[in-house]
Amino acid sequence: MTTHRFIPTRFHNVLGSLAPALHIPDGDTVVTETLDAIGFDKDGIRRTSGPNPMNGPIFVDGAEPGDALKVEIISMIPTRDTGFTRSIVAANVIDPETVRDLPPRDVAIWAIDREALTVRLSEPVAGLENFVLPLAPMIGCFGVAPSLGQAISTATSGEYGGNMDYRLFGPGTTVRFPVSAPGALFFLGDCHAVQGDGEIVGTGVETTFEVTVRLTVEKKAGLVWPRGETTEDIFTIGNARPLDQALQHATSEMLTWLASDYGLDRTAASHLLGQVVRYDIGNVFDPAYTMACRVAKKWLVRRL
Amino acid sequence: MTTHRFIPTRFHNVLGSLAPALHIPDGDTVVTETLDAIGFDKDGIRRTSGPNPMNGPIFVDGAEPGDALKVEIISMIPTRDTGFTRSIVAANVIDPETVRDLPPRDVAIWAIDREALTVRLSEPVAGLENFVLPLAPMIGCFGVAPSLGQAISTATSGEYGGNMDYRLFGPGTTVRFPVSAPGALFFLGDCHAVQGDGEIVGTGVETTFEVTVRLTVEKKAGLVWPRGETTEDIFTIGNARPLDQALQHATSEMLTWLASDYGLDRTAASHLLGQVVRYDIGNVFDPAYTMACRVAKKWLVRRL
Amino acid sequence: MTTHRFIPTRFHNVLGSLAPALHIPDGDTVVTETLDAIGFDKDGIRRTSGPNPMNGPIFVDGAEPGDALKVEIISMIPTRDTGFTRSIVAANVIDPETVRDLPPRDVAIWAIDREALTVRLSEPVAGLENFVLPLAPMIGCFGVAPSLGQAISTATSGEYGGNMDYRLFGPGTTVRFPVSAPGALFFLGDCHAVQGDGEIVGTGVETTFEVTVRLTVEKKAGLVWPRGETTEDIFTIGNARPLDQALQHATSEMLTWLASDYGLDRTAASHLLGQVVRYDIGNVFDPAYTMACRVAKKWLVRRL
Amino acid sequence: MTTHRFIPTRFHNVLGSLAPALHIPDGDTVVTETLDAIGFDKDGIRRTSGPNPMNGPIFVDGAEPGDALKVEIISMIPTRDTGFTRSIVAANVIDPETVRDLPPRDVAIWAIDREALTVRLSEPVAGLENFVLPLAPMIGCFGVAPSLGQAISTATSGEYGGNMDYRLFGPGTTVRFPVSAPGALFFLGDCHAVQGDGEIVGTGVETTFEVTVRLTVEKKAGLVWPRGETTEDIFTIGNARPLDQALQHATSEMLTWLASDYGLDRTAASHLLGQVVRYDIGNVFDPAYTMACRVAKKWLVRRL
Repeated sequence: MTTHRFIPTRFHNVLGSLAPALHIPDGDTVVTETLDAIGFDKDGIRRTSGPNPMNGPIFVDGAEPGDALKVEIISMIPTRDTGFTRSIVAANVIDPETVRDLPPRDVAIWAIDREALTVRLSEPVAGLENFVLPLAPMIGCFGVAPSLGQAISTATSGEYGGNMDYRLFGPGTTVRFPVSAPGALFFLGDCHAVQGDGEIVGTGVETTFEVTVRLTVEKKAGLVWPRGETTEDIFTIGNARPLDQALQHATSEMLTWLASDYGLDRTAASHLLGQVVRYDIGNVFDPAYTMACRVAKKWLVRRL
Repeated sequence: MTTHRFIPTRFHNVLGSLAPALHIPDGDTVVTETLDAIGFDKDGIRRTSGPNPMNGPIFVDGAEPGDALKVEIISMIPTRDTGFTRSIVAANVIDPETVRDLPPRDVAIWAIDREALTVRLSEPVAGLENFVLPLAPMIGCFGVAPSLGQAISTATSGEYGGNMDYRLFGPGTTVRFPVSAPGALFFLGDCHAVQGDGEIVGTGVETTFEVTVRLTVEKKAGLVWPRGETTEDIFTIGNARPLDQALQHATSEMLTWLASDYGLDRTAASHLLGQVVRYDIGNVFDPAYTMACRVAKKWLVRRL
Repeated sequence: MTTHRFIPTRFHNVLGSLAPALHIPDGDTVVTETLDAIGFDKDGIRRTSGPNPMNGPIFVDGAEPGDALKVEIISMIPTRDTGFTRSIVAANVIDPETVRDLPPRDVAIWAIDREALTVRLSEPVAGLENFVLPLAPMIGCFGVAPSLGQAISTATSGEYGGNMDYRLFGPGTTVRFPVSAPGALFFLGDCHAVQGDGEIVGTGVETTFEVTVRLTVEKKAGLVWPRGETTEDIFTIGNARPLDQALQHATSEMLTWLASDYGLDRTAASHLLGQVVRYDIGNVFDPAYTMACRVAKKWLVRRL
Repeated sequence: MTTHRFIPTRFHNVLGSLAPALHIPDGDTVVTETLDAIGFDKDGIRRTSGPNPMNGPIFVDGAEPGDALKVEIISMIPTRDTGFTRSIVAANVIDPETVRDLPPRDVAIWAIDREALTVRLSEPVAGLENFVLPLAPMIGCFGVAPSLGQAISTATSGEYGGNMDYRLFGPGTTVRFPVSAPGALFFLGDCHAVQGDGEIVGTGVETTFEVTVRLTVEKKAGLVWPRGETTEDIFTIGNARPLDQALQHATSEMLTWLASDYGLDRTAASHLLGQVVRYDIGNVFDPAYTMACRVAKKWLVRRL
């Protein structure tokens, strides 16, 4: 197994069936440096424009439609001392008539302490004098080429992944995407130093990272939507509006997974989920919202 | 301060401006035994019918429209060895076309071990042989009389509370409801031994409890939606469909609260919530869905 | 058959199981004068407050839960020379970020010409100098007492009817409501001189009317949602948010109706609706939105 | 002005920045024969696969991002004696629990009488013996290349048009799409002999047509969403889920249009729309639903 250092020469604002920027054998590891969401690199130089420029696509040998691409997020090392956020909640996450009262939207700069592994606002804000957050890196946007030869904006998401902005997409998590194009065509970018549920200001703390992922093909995997796994949990992802529909997708995918890999028929899975399921919200900002359906592994016995 | 033992002689399937069953001074404590969601008591005798029969209303002296009723959930002691659930996920939480594949809906019985404080299925189900859950009591439905003299079914929820089915409504949590009627008119019932997010089978483990709450009036409180507090967190509740709208209500209420009690203007609150907010789902089964907007107290400094 | 002139002594802001203001035999006709949506009468005197004060309830002899109350809207005669509207679209009907650009909300007065049967703005507005509308009377809010002894605000709607704000609820239309309480307990008010689809400014042209309706009981009718009929069309009503769910209710009710009264099984009804159904929007302003599912009678042969 | 007969050699299942199949001068007319939604031609030969294969893209000289492409639908002539539909309403348009009762989904064949200009089921269905529909041709899917170099499935829709399935997209209607790519890159296909609101069985009567359109560039047009015009009406289109959001897009676009071309500020436009707007539903079947916001021209005075 080899580790490839991938230095993109161009970046993409879509996930799609584009010409591969890198070919790798199944199971290899890739190290790559991402830009921030609007195209600046670790030195503060603008390399391209937004939304969410992607590194990729990476062609993984042997990946075929119907397979899954397993993505192990091995590490995410911040490469810059600053990040940025939008300064005000998005209009779509508050009661419509109260939007009239919002101040204008601005951008705020955050300081990232790469030794202490903390994040704080660069300029003091009244009431948040002691607001120092632990660094909690996550990948905002990643996935594979969608079906039908589509190329879809990195502002949104779908079965293929995309801009999901879910907190658990960080180091130590393994994600599986349903492959629709030969080679899977993996894309990656838009990393956050930290982010609350819902990405409700329209950003996390947007900055640059060195990201290491291992990419492995799993044959005939039967996924419709992305699936993930941490030390503690398994989870499925649904991307759609309204949240109700995202939840339907994530729950349906979990039922499929519990049947195929954990030997639970619809009734057993209903008993399990009914009493222990957890739902997490990725973003409620992008065109498609993201809902995760999560179950602790302690309740599960793998049959496969 | 007195403790009142409240033994209802009748139960209600609405929250509304009904004749009070009990009058108490502001700040007193009430102990009462609830029926299960379909009207059976701790002895398995059917006392009334569903949905969610309520104990109440309790008139709290001094409560006036515009105030908040503070409800401290002091204890919840299970009073029966069995609970029940529906056996299959609700049609509205999975992809519409997959509803065709669901088995018929049935009822399952669960054993509640009141010494070990655990809950398990009474009949073994393949794949769930070792599925033993810790008892995690919560109030499914509670709140105050709604505005305008309304009387609203205990199947649903609104600004006044109601059938919210949120896991954090358990012992140790304090909840505040916006008062709309003189005396607040507090109702309580539909307690669960345990429940996953979303109440996606349409029930938690439905059973009977002895519940102890302390009821206190807070004058001119400025709430629109329910607010809660645990040792770790503060949270607000929005009840509506779709979840997107429930989230808007909860987020708007949190912005109001952060401004009034924590000195955070819209921009400071946006910085805070944008990076640390957590959203929890109460139910996605009832006519109105329930979303909680939650913030850890460690990020907050109370100004009031 | 008798005609009753019903002069209310009080008005209600809920539809519910209140003490009847009038008892009538099945099949009788009622003439009554309605207030406007905020409680002013035909002489401009404020008689009560909003939202949508109702005349009623009228107890119709013989009506029992499970029956339908048939309401024939015989005539609506305007009784005042003025109406009012809100002056700006509601925040929830435009893109959230554009709400920031809305001017403040005001009230506009409209002149109703009761001879010419036209409606126009009282004060000229640039660009609308020649905006003279034909009078198109409709009942904004009407229905029967909801189930479970509920009393629900006239701001919203449900299976029992309520604040639906649908253009076709005018003279010549017959509506059937599912009865949940003995006597049906019919309520009526909130009439509009004219209104566009969706009631998107939050009002139609709100004014006072003399309304004549005939109320007839139909036994064991099998309705879940309101059904209507004009000379040209039959239609069903769904009330919910989002519109998607209102549409589901209305379509499901239409499938039931086409099966029971027109001999069309699910497949035949699908062929019919798939190619000829029309959907109309009542309001997209109230807590529950209203969708009508409409089919021209020319495609139908009644089997019952 | 020239008329081009465009005979595609391949068809596309996306709208995107693909290599043009035809270049034409601004203002020219194109005649082309479309396949049906699953790729069969007028002779019943399968030429390609679904969803909704497109003729195009057509590069129109002079079209640049920020312009509008005006599409006049001059004629639609059916080229086959048969069409097909799905035989049962889609699961997402009825109440979730009632999906359990739907019969399996099948395909039905319809006879198109090209002299009488009528459409009827080929096999008799009980209750629909006399169900003969007038031919009402419409384009189900058309539009221009989306922004950012995207290529998006013909199953869905967006600002660029796509699979909107709106009855008024027939002969005599003029549509304007916002241009995002040089040459606009116009696509066209998926025509229906007739279709009800919502495309609730998942199809109209799907068949093949000879379609004639005239394509004209309008510079710096200021559109965000598609706009249309018939003899009687102007309308705007919003594509999104839920319908509530589609309605927000369509209404916002109408407000912009009324301001720029008809001299109506937000208040005047609110007065107008509040009392005369009509909302029509395109489809409620595809990933993005389609809502039209329509206003009769008789209420409008063009200022531009």
